[in-house]
Formats: sequence, C-alpha cells, structure tokens
Amino acid sequence: MKIRIEKTTAPKTLPAADNPLLFGTIFTDHMFIMDYNSEKGWFDSRIVPYGPILMEPSAMVFHYGQELFEGLKAYKAEDGRVLLFRPELNAKRSNDTCERICMPTIPVEDYVQAVKTLVDIDTKWIPERPGTSLYIRPFIFATEPALGVRPSSSYMFVIILSPVGAYYPEGLNPIKIWIEEEYVRAVRGGLGEAKAGANYVASLKAQIKAHEAGYSQVLWLDGIERKYVEEVGAMNIFFKIKGKVITPVLNGSILPGITRRSCMELCGMWGYEVIERQISADELFSAAGNGDLEEIWGTGTAAVISPVGILRKGDEVVKIAGGGIGELTRRLYDNLTGIQLGKIDGPDGWVTEV
Amino acid sequence: MKIRIEKTTAPKTLPAADNPLLFGTIFTDHMFIMDYNSEKGWFDSRIVPYGPILMEPSAMVFHYGQELFEGLKAYKAEDGRVLLFRPELNAKRSNDTCERICMPTIPVEDYVQAVKTLVDIDTKWIPERPGTSLYIRPFIFATEPALGVRPSSSYMFVIILSPVGAYYPEGLNPIKIWIEEEYVRAVRGGLGEAKAGANYVASLKAQIKAHEAGYSQVLWLDGIERKYVEEVGAMNIFFKIKGKVITPVLNGSILPGITRRSCMELCGMWGYEVIERQISADELFSAAGNGDLEEIWGTGTAAVISPVGILRKGDEVVKIAGGGIGELTRRLYDNLTGIQLGKIDGPDGWVTEV
Repeated sequence: MKIRIEKTTAPKTLPAADNPLLFGTIFTDHMFIMDYNSEKGWFDSRIVPYGPILMEPSAMVFHYGQELFEGLKAYKAEDGRVLLFRPELNAKRSNDTCERICMPTIPVEDYVQAVKTLVDIDTKWIPERPGTSLYIRPFIFATEPALGVRPSSSYMFVIILSPVGAYYPEGLNPIKIWIEEEYVRAVRGGLGEAKAGANYVASLKAQIKAHEAGYSQVLWLDGIERKYVEEVGAMNIFFKIKGKVITPVLNGSILPGITRRSCMELCGMWGYEVIERQISADELFSAAGNGDLEEIWGTGTAAVISPVGILRKGDEVVKIAGGGIGELTRRLYDNLTGIQLGKIDGPDGWVTEV
Repeated sequence: MKIRIEKTTAPKTLPAADNPLLFGTIFTDHMFIMDYNSEKGWFDSRIVPYGPILMEPSAMVFHYGQELFEGLKAYKAEDGRVLLFRPELNAKRSNDTCERICMPTIPVEDYVQAVKTLVDIDTKWIPERPGTSLYIRPFIFATEPALGVRPSSSYMFVIILSPVGAYYPEGLNPIKIWIEEEYVRAVRGGLGEAKAGANYVASLKAQIKAHEAGYSQVLWLDGIERKYVEEVGAMNIFFKIKGKVITPVLNGSILPGITRRSCMELCGMWGYEVIERQISADELFSAAGNGDLEEIWGTGTAAVISPVGILRKGDEVVKIAGGGIGELTRRLYDNLTGIQLGKIDGPDGWVTEV
C-alpha cells in the first residue's frame, strides 16, 4: 500500500516529563486516514497533520452506530527499538468485527503497515518513563450521508496516537470488581464478541453504578441465564482455582482479547492447565469460601494485567489473594510487560519492531 | 429557549415535483444545533445553514457509540397548515434514551420548540404529493475528545430535515417478514428499549440475510428464549387474532413506538380488545394454521402502517389476510394518515400546528 505523507508544519510541544498523560487525552502530530467507497474500495491512504474531520450531519455513524475500534500500544525498548505487541491480531480482529457489522475489511498487511508508518513518524511521542507507552487507536466508521437503516456505502479508517501514563503509577495495585445483576452488556447472537462501539455505550450505566459503590469495574454476567461470568468490559477475566487457570469460554458475547490469548499461551507454556469453560458466579463464591479461589486477574491492552483484590455480588463480598496480588498474576504482569518492552524474549512473533 | 438564527445566503434548489425523494438522501437549507458541556449545560441553540460539522477524531461518538436519534414527520395539510404528530412524545422518548445511555436530557418544551422553529424556517421544503412528508431527524451524540470509556462531558444536539417520498408510491402494499433465529437485536437489561444507534448496527447482518432471501424486514425474537416475537427493528408489530388486537408487551428490549401507542389507542376507541402480552412465533403459526390469525401489521414513523402479507420462520411460510391487506390494517392506515394530514379529527393533542 502506498501511503501519501503530509507532515505537519506546526509540530506541537511534547508533554513535559512529569505530565501524568491521562489516558487518551493528548494526541500526537499526525494521524492516518484511508477512505472507502463501494466503487473504489479503500483508497487515498495518507498520513496528515492531526486535526478535526469534516463530517456530514447525516453521516450514518451518528445515527446507526456502525463503527468499530481497536487498541494497541507502542513501547520504547531500553536499546531504543520501538516495539509493537502482536499488531496483526488487532488487524484480524478488526476484520472479524467488520464482518459482523457489515463493513469492508482491510488487508492485515495494509493495516499493520499503516500502524507502523504512523508510529514511525510520531516516534518522538513515545514516552519513556516506566509503565508509559504510546496508545494506538485505529477505528473505522460509516460516512454515507443518508438516513436509511442499512450498511453504509462509504467509510473512513483513521488511526490516532496518544502518549499514555502508567496504568498503575504507584505500581501494580489490586482492583475491586462488581458483578452486575441488573444491566446486560451483550447476549449470544448479538455484538458482544465484536469490538463495536455498541458494546461500550451499553456498559456505561452499570459502570457508573459500580463507581458510585466504590468499585472500579463491572464483571458482566451472561444475558440469558444471568449466571455465568463473561468479561469486565475493558478486560477479560481469569481465575486460578486449585492451581488451574480458568477463563470464560468465548461463547459469542465475549471479546476475544489479545492479552487474554497471550496470557493463556504463557500459562500453558509454564505448565498450568488452562481451561476455557462456563463459570458461574455461584461457583466463584463457593470456591472463595473453600479457599480454592487463589487468584483473579483481568487482561487487557490498557492495564495489561489487573489483579483483582475484591469481588462483590449483591451483599456478598470476598477478598481474593488476601486482597493483594497473587503470585501467578505478578508473574504474568512481569513477563507480559517485559516481553512488550523487549526486556524478556517472548514466543516467536509476539513483538514486532517498527 | 432563545434560538439564534443565521439564514443561508445560498438556498438550494427545491427537488423537482417528480423527484422520488428517496428516504433520507436530500436535506434542506438549515439545521438546528445546540451544544452541551458539563459546566454550561445546554447552550448556544442556533439554526444555521445545513452543512458539515467539524469533529475531533477522538470524539467519543466515533469510538463508544454514545448516540441516539428520533424520527418524526411534518405534513402539509390541504388548508396549508403545517402539522406535526405528537412531537412531545419524541422529546420524552429521547430523554428516556438519554437516561439509559448516560446523556443529559433536554426539556421537552425546548426540544419541541427547536423542531417547530426549524420546520417553520424550511417550510417550503415540505413536499405536497400524496404520501410525502418532511422527515425530521433530531439526534444527540458525544463530542468529548478523549478515549476513556465513560460518559462524555460534552454533546451536540442536531436536527436535520429531509423531504421524503411516499413509502408506498403505488399505494399500501403488503410486505414479507422473516423471523430471525440466528442473530439477536437486543436483550432485557440491554439497550433494546432505547433509541440508541447501537440497536441499529446490531440489526444489519440479519437484515442483509432477509433481503437476500427476498424478505423486506426482520421480525426479531427475544434474546433469551428465542421464542417470543419482539419488533421489526424499524417497526413495532401487531396481530389480529380472533378479533382481538395483540402486540408484544414492552419488556425492556422493545422500542416503545409512538405509532404503536397511537395504534393501540385508536383500536381501543374503536371497541377492540387490545392486549399487550408475550406472544411466541409458535402461537402465531398455529393461529395461522387454524385460520385465527386474521391480520398482521407493523407500525412506525416511516411507513405509518405496514400490512404484512407473508410471515416466514425457517421453512414455515404463511400467508396473512390472503396475502393482501386486512380490514383493520387499512382502517388504521387511513385514519392515522388522515389525522396526520389534518383530514380527520384525531384525539385531542395528537396534532400540533407549526
């Protein structure tokens, strides 16, 4: 793919070294854009100065939510290399979402090339303090200016970059999660396994409820029996029970996380039995009561690994790993971030140099 | 509410009298805009020339689908009056959706004032041929330029207008609907009863499948038991069985349609027993087999009343009302469109003059 490059003539000032780099609030000098229409397919791939986009008010994205996004990070290794973590998996998942919500796919190599070229141009924006990174946000949305409910005939693929601070500025810290019993994020047959905006707007109300109760994240139950745990909205979830690693099986309403997959692969390599299956909230509380529920952690691009210290459902509250950080949780965090930063050799192909 | 008005200096040419006015493809000279931020609340309500909007690529609407819309129509009566049909119900439903997806509500009187003022300014755009109208599309979307998953702190409320042709240019025509068994639109606990973009993107895949099979609309089943009929995505659904009018009860995953409500009210006034309850696809096919299923029709703003001539689920296909238009369906269509056009006196307050 040929990418036209128009560099900014007014580069912004880089954030100061002590800027906390609040997630997704600061953007770099450039962005990648590619257009699609049904006659030409994808065309005019370009990198241009970061700035506002002109949108028709009738553009379908504002009305019928035909949009998706991905998230990944670029890291600066100690030796100066710029590293991406499994970017081709984001490209593939983006295409899976495209299929589900009737959008045109993008060849994986073009997708990865666009990400790499943009990161390379804005490479000076990658922060270097421990735990920081350059967050990469590719997204696609419907632009056809028409109000009929049907797949759009035109789209825009955009990539923007945002330097982000450490998720845990004071070191890895256990979070409290809340099992949601009233609201539902997604159901089998719906969009739950797609990275569509629709799943995120559906999560807002329960998120506020959890925050008001002092919990940082919602753990969703399945929408049918309201019994089996699914995911945390921004993360997949793992349990260590009697030495075995268990995570909810991808049933159609759970996002197939890339950190989830990597975590399963690492645990497998380390000799753990890794089981994907339905697991009910009741089973979790009863395992916690017996002392069998040894660790819980979330996996996602933003935090990589999040230890869970407190789990609540209704009036039942249990402490996990004594409210601290389990041994395997810590090992996964250290290894995954080590691989991402190029300090530890990961499996072949996990890290791609820009 | 004070609305600032900036009229266009370059009015467009009105569509020719024989323009088919394909739904939602032609827009008028002006649009209404109002901004929101968490400090000021809603502010700067204005009517400006219709045209593109500048959007930050990080605006939350592109990423997390926090958006809603409404749809209503303005009609030109034979005596020249411009009429709206129950616009305050759209304003109230918009506010209900706002609550569900964590957006700020708009006072009903301001909402209706915005609609009326805009229609009044572009009143010459209301087409006059039978069955035509001016479609009004109010919508609200998240504009905060930040990537955290949480409710946006800023929004835009926009109203655009589109002259639309007759839904049935050759007169009321029965449609074929397809009961969808694979995909799910919404589930209780989710967003199904809200007029959020999320529900529409979720419907696209099944819609394509139905079209490919020669069916114009999908009839959705509930997401839990996959047994009870819910709605048609762009319409609510009604059945006349042994003289009684039955429509699925609003269970949390069905949109509370304004035409649905009006249709129930009219049927009640005409002496029909009107029942809101769960109704399964099996019950429908067995009633059809017995000859008890007399009529099916859909209700929605676009078509007002759509007679259903063919109903299919898997390999079972039944003809309804002999594949034609039932008597009550026709009466509802004639009366509702008559009321909307000011030809028939409807119940108090159903019609509002601009």
